[in-house]
Amino acid sequence: ELGDLLEAIQPEQRLALVSLLGKEFDLAALTEVDEAIRLDIVEHLPNEQIAEAIGEMDSDDAVYILEDLDQEDQEEILAKLPFTERVRLRRSLDYPESTAGRRMQTEFVAVPPFWTVGQTIDYMREDEDLPDSFSQIFVIDPTFKLLGAVDLDRVLRTKRSVKIDAIMRDTSHAIPAEMDQEEAAQLFEQYDLLSAAVVDDNGRLVGVLTIDDVVDVIQEEAEEDLLRLGGVGDEELSDSVGGASRSRIPWLFVNSVTAFLSATVIGLFDATIQQIVALAILMPIVAGMGGNAGAQTMTVTVRALATRALDTHNAPRIIRREAGVGLLNGLVFGAFIGVVAGLWFQNVHIGGIIATAMLINMIAAALAGILIPIVLDKSGADPAVSSAVFVTAVTDVIGFFSFLGLAAWWFNVA
Amino acid sequence: ELGDLLEAIQPEQRLALVSLLGKEFDLAALTEVDEAIRLDIVEHLPNEQIAEAIGEMDSDDAVYILEDLDQEDQEEILAKLPFTERVRLRRSLDYPESTAGRRMQTEFVAVPPFWTVGQTIDYMREDEDLPDSFSQIFVIDPTFKLLGAVDLDRVLRTKRSVKIDAIMRDTSHAIPAEMDQEEAAQLFEQYDLLSAAVVDDNGRLVGVLTIDDVVDVIQEEAEEDLLRLGGVGDEELSDSVGGASRSRIPWLFVNSVTAFLSATVIGLFDATIQQIVALAILMPIVAGMGGNAGAQTMTVTVRALATRALDTHNAPRIIRREAGVGLLNGLVFGAFIGVVAGLWFQNVHIGGIIATAMLINMIAAALAGILIPIVLDKSGADPAVSSAVFVTAVTDVIGFFSFLGLAAWWFNVA
Ligand SMILES: [Mg+2]
Ligand SMILES: [Mg+2]
Ligand SMILES: [Mg+2]
Ligand SMILES: [Mg+2]
Ligand SMILES: [Mg+2]
Ligand SMILES: [Mg+2]
Ligand SMILES: [Mg+2]
Ligand SMILES: [Mg+2]
Ligand SMILES: [Mg+2]
Ligand SMILES: [Mg+2]
Ligand SMILES: [Mg+2]
Ligand SMILES: [Mg+2]
Ligand SMILES: [Mg+2]
Repeated sequence: ELGDLLEAIQPEQRLALVSLLGKEFDLAALTEVDEAIRLDIVEHLPNEQIAEAIGEMDSDDAVYILEDLDQEDQEEILAKLPFTERVRLRRSLDYPESTAGRRMQTEFVAVPPFWTVGQTIDYMREDEDLPDSFSQIFVIDPTFKLLGAVDLDRVLRTKRSVKIDAIMRDTSHAIPAEMDQEEAAQLFEQYDLLSAAVVDDNGRLVGVLTIDDVVDVIQEEAEEDLLRLGGVGDEELSDSVGGASRSRIPWLFVNSVTAFLSATVIGLFDATIQQIVALAILMPIVAGMGGNAGAQTMTVTVRALATRALDTHNAPRIIRREAGVGLLNGLVFGAFIGVVAGLWFQNVHIGGIIATAMLINMIAAALAGILIPIVLDKSGADPAVSSAVFVTAVTDVIGFFSFLGLAAWWFNVA
Repeated sequence: ELGDLLEAIQPEQRLALVSLLGKEFDLAALTEVDEAIRLDIVEHLPNEQIAEAIGEMDSDDAVYILEDLDQEDQEEILAKLPFTERVRLRRSLDYPESTAGRRMQTEFVAVPPFWTVGQTIDYMREDEDLPDSFSQIFVIDPTFKLLGAVDLDRVLRTKRSVKIDAIMRDTSHAIPAEMDQEEAAQLFEQYDLLSAAVVDDNGRLVGVLTIDDVVDVIQEEAEEDLLRLGGVGDEELSDSVGGASRSRIPWLFVNSVTAFLSATVIGLFDATIQQIVALAILMPIVAGMGGNAGAQTMTVTVRALATRALDTHNAPRIIRREAGVGLLNGLVFGAFIGVVAGLWFQNVHIGGIIATAMLINMIAAALAGILIPIVLDKSGADPAVSSAVFVTAVTDVIGFFSFLGLAAWWFNVA
């Protein structure tokens, strides 16, 4: 709730509040606020105080705060921590950003396979150094190689004399520390995991990834895709006017370039437009409807790619489906808009031309909407970032060209 | 994995596979597939077999399958179940769709507060009727009133002689059964819950909501917002051409109506366009850039409303910020596009007019992008569904009107 408060108040009041709280300020609240606010506050606090707070946090929360600091501050804070703490945090920080290794918590409970349930319970009753909360116990050999895991409810249901290795389950869902957090989150969803072991290249247990942090990953990734599709970068609500403007200018700039491209296409037909002004009045309808149909297909495609629901396996079927939807919607709206436009200008030729152009552009929109994200994805780009630019460019250019081109040819004016 | 297989194969092969598996077919796989596929398969299976499978599932999974069936099939299946099972499922089904009561599992572990840890562990070792997995134990009085909860790791760390009420924590995060699932999911995120008690109006424990199902809710809600913003209804990847087309036609239809509206605006200036064809060439740039800027603001706003990051508290600040961003981007792109257009047509007047129109439309876009979703949200509509139509209508109409209107006035041709 301190986190919510920090986000709600004015920027100037934030640092004042933190200063006011002094030693009482709970740095754990920082894991709940926007990145910009976190950086602002952390830079303001003495490294001394940060080090002390970090020593008491779970390692994943500590890493979450440390990773945003510059190298120098990071080193200074790490140097103030006890040796084992420091080694653990360094290990997490050594894994690349957005990997399971970076998000994992290095505090976990692990026991040898030959212990009994009774021994395990006694150990948990006596050990003071257990993590704050945990939902499974890992089973390891003396070299920390992961052998299995036992859920707590299984421990509680089993008689004291039973050996751990008799009730442990295999840990085929163990997550390599290098795995991308998004992929790890998908494993959690698919297998309904509460926590999962994170292992290094040699299959040794290095940490545990827990569902509460995975939920944050899922939210972040969904937000990222939504904002990118909307043409907004990694923007946060707490950003200033300048910050928000900076995050939006690149996409608007690319859009202005493609807008001039479609203006050039219109320019090819200036003589035609001068003679038949109705064309200028109707042409945005063709381009706009195509743009919307393309955005629909693109949205479905980007989402399906993000959830891995669309793969090489079913891509041909989905592409055929989208082409079919484009054809169908092209027929429906070609007819509708053709009739309305024909009645409006009392000219059956204009109705026929806009209907044909609509049909062409709706099919082009469907193909662009599905093929562009797939090709971007295949080539390693994030389809959410750049699909929209290309799809709009295609539907604008083909929309204007097919409508004005057909008219110029039919009425023979150019 | 059976679920993945079912989604991957051809529709015709699906029922064949299910028939082939016969009694071996595991209905739990149905909770993992698209709704259309689930319905298709369930309708094909004998109610007998469904009832038997449902009797063995966790109640939340059973409800997930039952809720999509028609009344008659539902009754027939419920009638075949043992009494207690039937009562439990009916209670869940009685809660409205998308509430915590509908998503909860009615299997849970509950003990009285005066038991000791030892008694609790012995009970769990002997009882055969425990849920398949659980992460906390609830504490209730004889009337099922919820008194508290104990996490399993707490039980395991505590000596046998300690009383449960000494280690239980308060359950202020208990979820009313009527609460919307989206709101419940937010509580899970905010407080990092693994499971939460679901209580009825009288504070009596009726079930438990678990994080794995909440993760599905989070995914569903994020997907819903993304697809709605993209102008696609509740479409699924397994939908046929007809199904997908149906889900997209409503939005395309609304769009065609607003497209005719903007065409009418252009039509007001037909004489102007006939004399200065450059206007027809440039006008889509003004409308298109405004549309994109509006979509950016709208995306940020819809997301912020969905995550409750935007509320009456900070709305004035965010509205001011967006107006500022609109002004700034309007100045930047007004200048840029004004210069390019002026050079292109070798006409400083046209440059000045498009720059001014851009500035006006970018500010209108920012205001429409933030105010329309907020007003829709306030009036109880889902801002993700309909914001885009209105925002595009505003940016098209204002874009065309400001550009063509300024030109008609400046060049004095109409
Ligand atoms: Mg971070
Ligand atoms: Mg799941
Ligand atoms: Mg954590
Ligand atoms: Mg956390
Ligand atoms: Mg990512
Ligand atoms: Mg992504
Ligand atoms: Mg059951
Ligand atoms: Mg359902
Ligand atoms: Mg959280
Ligand atoms: Mg469940
Ligand atoms: Mg489930
Ligand atoms: Mg909803
Ligand atoms: Mg929603």
